Amino acid sequence: MHTDRPYKPRIAVVGSGAVGCYYGGKLAAVGHDVHFLMRADLEAVRARGLTLRSTETPELHLPKPQVYATPEEIGPVDIVLIALKTTANGALETLIPPLLKPDGATTLVTLQNGLGNEEFLANRFGRERVMGALCFVCLNRVDSGVIEHYGHGTISIGEFIGAPQARTHALAGALRDAGIQADVVENLVTERWRKLVWNIPFNGLSVVAGGIPTDEILATPALEALVRGLMRETLSIAAAKGHPIPESYLEFQIERTRPMGAYKPSSLLDFWAGRPVEVESIWGEPLRQARSVGIEAARLETLYALIQKVSQARGFDPKQCYR
Amino acid sequence: MHTDRPYKPRIAVVGSGAVGCYYGGKLAAVGHDVHFLMRADLEAVRARGLTLRSTETPELHLPKPQVYATPEEIGPVDIVLIALKTTANGALETLIPPLLKPDGATTLVTLQNGLGNEEFLANRFGRERVMGALCFVCLNRVDSGVIEHYGHGTISIGEFIGAPQARTHALAGALRDAGIQADVVENLVTERWRKLVWNIPFNGLSVVAGGIPTDEILATPALEALVRGLMRETLSIAAAKGHPIPESYLEFQIERTRPMGAYKPSSLLDFWAGRPVEVESIWGEPLRQARSVGIEAARLETLYALIQKVSQARGFDPKQCYR
Repeated sequence: MHTDRPYKPRIAVVGSGAVGCYYGGKLAAVGHDVHFLMRADLEAVRARGLTLRSTETPELHLPKPQVYATPEEIGPVDIVLIALKTTANGALETLIPPLLKPDGATTLVTLQNGLGNEEFLANRFGRERVMGALCFVCLNRVDSGVIEHYGHGTISIGEFIGAPQARTHALAGALRDAGIQADVVENLVTERWRKLVWNIPFNGLSVVAGGIPTDEILATPALEALVRGLMRETLSIAAAKGHPIPESYLEFQIERTRPMGAYKPSSLLDFWAGRPVEVESIWGEPLRQARSVGIEAARLETLYALIQKVSQARGFDPKQCYR
Repeated sequence: MHTDRPYKPRIAVVGSGAVGCYYGGKLAAVGHDVHFLMRADLEAVRARGLTLRSTETPELHLPKPQVYATPEEIGPVDIVLIALKTTANGALETLIPPLLKPDGATTLVTLQNGLGNEEFLANRFGRERVMGALCFVCLNRVDSGVIEHYGHGTISIGEFIGAPQARTHALAGALRDAGIQADVVENLVTERWRKLVWNIPFNGLSVVAGGIPTDEILATPALEALVRGLMRETLSIAAAKGHPIPESYLEFQIERTRPMGAYKPSSLLDFWAGRPVEVESIWGEPLRQARSVGIEAARLETLYALIQKVSQARGFDPKQCYR
């Protein structure tokens, strides 16, 4: 354990599910001052600590993590890592203010999915303090305070406004020191669009095509064609919003998905587990941006309409029902 | 019973499910010479006859209908009423030939849903002998040989090629004499497109939006918008194929659907009951026709891709599973 590192910001984790506990826990394990805001899992983590299991690295156990029931108990911090489900963003209006330093020196870093989260924070708490990160990681919270990690873990960090700053590189460096593959991106929003090129078709079709993993999507020719159609629409919207992505990225994303086998996108896991699906940040906001620049995106529009309704019928594993 | 009517063709019913038994049974009840080809229900109907119950008219019981296991036992007829599910059209290649008179005088009348059925018959048995009919009727086969009728029943009959002929009017007249509201249409294919304006969105979304009746579709603004989008695409394809339908037909169809309440389109009933959904005749063939004339129909394309996969996961009632 290193407890005398020169860069040791006071960090709060808001939304201590799998993503928050994983990145926050890795930072705490190497001596960072991490404060977890918890709700349902608070008592269990106080009693038994936080456990990160991985198929790639030894189990990590934090016997006494700093956990709290309210942001007031945490008080002002240097960095807030936000890993709440985007469907619960409304709660940030009350959860964030007690964590802010009066001088504006608190940085808000959203690790959340899709589009619109940086804007949400910027509109309420000031755009200069907003950063974002894209997490490419397979995690599952299997019990209170027990997170399982199945692979990957790369986190790409960027500023919401402008080029990377010292703070951007400092946070990436802290994460690298904690054993996480972290990089700094020049244009965060472009990276968000690049991630959506995959998430819009695969997360969406996995839910609305009957609850199927990625290999079943690609094994159905009409669905593979629809993946391409949705990806092309996403590239068009991104380009119109000033984020050109080369057309070749489409085939690259499809080809990298084939060897993933029966991969279950996070939205499918959410759907099966009865958790809200992040409909607005993955499909709703991109569609609104398409409309704002007059881009026709009929496949995205169709998918968005269907997933709104289908995802309400959540909490069943179709393998138990379909025949 | 009238048994000495002047127009008394020899009629075969191929596909003796709800539609075939209803129209064939009504004709037989007034003395027409109707021969039913049956498979699963054959022994039950031989033992107990055919029963048509209705919420509108007295129960009709045919104690000894003419039922057969093979078309060879029926032999050549004047009219074949085809009410097979379109998903079983392949079987017509062997079922029809024994029913044909050698002089080409046998008329084939498809009562089936969607597009492509007249073409299927025309390509195999000659286009001059093909007629089609659109059935607007709520029926359910509740047991072997027991059909329940919940309302409507209008049948619109037309020639596949050209204007109505004497045989078109004769068949409509026979149906009217049997107590069915029957009319003759000038352009059968235009009428098929008009029916598709409703079937494409409502049958499709009822299945892929999570198994919901029409009122739930219209209660979800994004789905109601999608109904309009799908209807507009259907009007565009129909117009490009030479079947212009006024734009106002769209709002008329939506408004007439509202008072229908929790109406369950036939595809939803098929889906829930574990029967094949008529994917190709309702969505596949219209999409292929769109492509043949270079019309972009992205919503229809998306719906077709999804329903292919979703409808395979059939045979469950989501009300038993979803929470």
